[in-house]
Amino acid sequence: MQLIVVSNRGPVAYDRDAAGKRIEKRGAGGLVTALRGLVARHDVTWIASAISDEDRVVAREPATDVVLVAHDAASYRGYYDVIANPLLWFVQHELWGLATKPELDEATHAAWHDYETVNRNFASAVVAELDNRPDAVVFFHDYHLYLAPRYVRDARPNARLAHFVHIPWPSDWSVLPEAWRHAVHDGLLANDVVGFHTERWCRNFAHSCREVLGRDATATLTHHPISVDAAEFESLAESEEVLERERELVADRPELLVLRVDRTDPAKNIVRGFHAFATLLDEHAEWHGRVRLLALLDPSRQTIPEYVAYREAIEAAARELEERHPGAVTLRVADDFPQSVAAYKQYDVLFVNSVYDGLNLVVKEGPLVNTRAGVVVLSENAGAYEELGEWVIGVNPFDVQGQADALHEALTLAAGERTRRAQAIREHVRVHDIAEWVEAQLADLSNLQA
Amino acid sequence: MQLIVVSNRGPVAYDRDAAGKRIEKRGAGGLVTALRGLVARHDVTWIASAISDEDRVVAREPATDVVLVAHDAASYRGYYDVIANPLLWFVQHELWGLATKPELDEATHAAWHDYETVNRNFASAVVAELDNRPDAVVFFHDYHLYLAPRYVRDARPNARLAHFVHIPWPSDWSVLPEAWRHAVHDGLLANDVVGFHTERWCRNFAHSCREVLGRDATATLTHHPISVDAAEFESLAESEEVLERERELVADRPELLVLRVDRTDPAKNIVRGFHAFATLLDEHAEWHGRVRLLALLDPSRQTIPEYVAYREAIEAAARELEERHPGAVTLRVADDFPQSVAAYKQYDVLFVNSVYDGLNLVVKEGPLVNTRAGVVVLSENAGAYEELGEWVIGVNPFDVQGQADALHEALTLAAGERTRRAQAIREHVRVHDIAEWVEAQLADLSNLQA
Repeated sequence: MQLIVVSNRGPVAYDRDAAGKRIEKRGAGGLVTALRGLVARHDVTWIASAISDEDRVVAREPATDVVLVAHDAASYRGYYDVIANPLLWFVQHELWGLATKPELDEATHAAWHDYETVNRNFASAVVAELDNRPDAVVFFHDYHLYLAPRYVRDARPNARLAHFVHIPWPSDWSVLPEAWRHAVHDGLLANDVVGFHTERWCRNFAHSCREVLGRDATATLTHHPISVDAAEFESLAESEEVLERERELVADRPELLVLRVDRTDPAKNIVRGFHAFATLLDEHAEWHGRVRLLALLDPSRQTIPEYVAYREAIEAAARELEERHPGAVTLRVADDFPQSVAAYKQYDVLFVNSVYDGLNLVVKEGPLVNTRAGVVVLSENAGAYEELGEWVIGVNPFDVQGQADALHEALTLAAGERTRRAQAIREHVRVHDIAEWVEAQLADLSNLQA
Repeated sequence: MQLIVVSNRGPVAYDRDAAGKRIEKRGAGGLVTALRGLVARHDVTWIASAISDEDRVVAREPATDVVLVAHDAASYRGYYDVIANPLLWFVQHELWGLATKPELDEATHAAWHDYETVNRNFASAVVAELDNRPDAVVFFHDYHLYLAPRYVRDARPNARLAHFVHIPWPSDWSVLPEAWRHAVHDGLLANDVVGFHTERWCRNFAHSCREVLGRDATATLTHHPISVDAAEFESLAESEEVLERERELVADRPELLVLRVDRTDPAKNIVRGFHAFATLLDEHAEWHGRVRLLALLDPSRQTIPEYVAYREAIEAAARELEERHPGAVTLRVADDFPQSVAAYKQYDVLFVNSVYDGLNLVVKEGPLVNTRAGVVVLSENAGAYEELGEWVIGVNPFDVQGQADALHEALTLAAGERTRRAQAIREHVRVHDIAEWVEAQLADLSNLQA
């Protein structure tokens, strides 16, 4: 099958070394990792934004299998830093405190125009590529590109278009002005297929189409939860880099380790997590000195004021917890994936309490390599809860008392039951790994070729 | 028809005068006013909470047509000040900033138990009344009483039960822990009929039933927008008390008056309203000195920290607006209904930008008595927008720039068009007044008698 993959970030990023020579780096982000399986096995052109200065140089050269689209820098900022993040991200993760935020002002309106412009740039690149490869199927990704499918459809009515949304879909879109929310829904329905991680996000999309457009969703809606490359992940867990980190961790570990691994994103609910852990220790003196919370946090989107404020709130909450229960918490804010994998192997409880989460891969990565029959405590608002719910202890992300109770339950779960659940999750992830997700996408896309 | 009306506040409240003699006051709140029409025309017993000390004395005496239920004082506080307000009110008006609030702690869990207790007290009183009047139809009101219908249904499987929800119904209830949101939906579906102001809240309820209970709503869902007593309101507008206030206002009025009348509730979106008015004046020097914003605000729920903070934010925003544009705003925070009615008569633009609003009666009261062919600017998230949308200038409550544009449009609308729209709203409210709403409720309830 011929495929045109379209996403904001591409599979490679370009830079120059000290000598001024071009170097090629693997693109960042979970999406790129997930899609590598597609690219390896099919005839793929990948269209993405030129982000670095060197990307922009590459964008002017004849394209190979990666087409980089160079946007006007100011338009890109409005598109990315105002509309995609935080506006759409906050709408879709229900993070706004609507009593006071957001305030859509003249600058937001200008940024919406930027979002349209960047989406039009992407659509033009897609149409040019379709002229070369008229039989290719176009596969859009995520919340950066809600408008592009409509622009492509208008130019090429018979094109075959699919879109996968990697983040939650809320049922209520009334934060966006009528014209904007209409464009988002109309854009997605210009695809033949719209995919989500869960049935819940599909149901919400069906509801919001009726509310916003006044009609049922006409595209085929599918739900396929994304996953990880199990074999690669298991071999990474045995790499020297991870083993070294694991030795450091073991030398310093408490009797029982509660682990969280997240970006410093308000959607991840890190502050309430600290409060829940404090409540656990307030109520159960028997855990004092025996259990510690290790929070490994990757700093995220620090150009956006809401994210800077949230990181400060995280650090304040950790200090407060440490004052109340000395030695109870270790907070590390750093981009250090080997350390996270080492910690996955060592946890007794893996704590994921996201406010909302499209899927959450931490709960698939951790159990795959954990060596202690660790228990997973998982937010019912994470997409993965739909798949793994029967083997985890579910929590409501707003219920701090409930999370404290769940941590206690996890720490006291009988050994046999811990082992049974840990094995069940591991087997599930091995069987339903990224290859299955890729095959499911290809099956949906192949059906479009009929 | 025999009716048992059940609501938290009753039609009368008791107190003692300086001489220690019992006095009877008309109950406060819009609900009580609306239901007076029912009571006047039918054989009604009304069950409500004993709120004042004297209410509690009355509650121990033989009941007449008003049955006061005396709850344990601590239970009442948990039920009213924690669960009903702010928790349910904030969920239903989507006011929480979910990144950080609410945090449901041990005290919230205890308060949920209080909510159950108070609802059981109400259910017991209803069952006792049904024993006296087995043919009566029971009519529950609002968000204080979501659980009582299930308790009554379990005790009296053949009872005829209806419920009217006076506030918005959101599509997403995941803020509440699973057991709580299940109880809310299961409780409402224990009724034969569940009524809302708008079709939109009905659709959201159908969606949330599927999400929370995993099944379709089984009760009959109806939507009847509530209204005002047009004749009474028009005569009030000519009362000496109102005329006196109107003379004061006329002596001091600017060329063009933009009016808002609200409780100091974060759902009313008062701060964004000031920002929108500031944007209007920033962008249109032609209005300087010609137009003024008059904000008449009734202080609300000042025992709840979120409401105290919001009132402070209102006052700060008004000061900021006054500094930026001296003379542009008059803020009055007081419970002074005659002043509001006088202002209704005098506005050129009536500004209602609620975040969410079950219906909003200000946009029905104002046009009924306005004398200047004033234009209504109305939030698309107010229930009344479904009825009046074609005659108002609609605004997205989060779009401050859009609200500034709408105010400018309202101030410049051609005279003929202003008159046409103002008359259309007035006629609509006269025809569809509170009597129609009462008849619609009675028709739904009568159908239950078949």
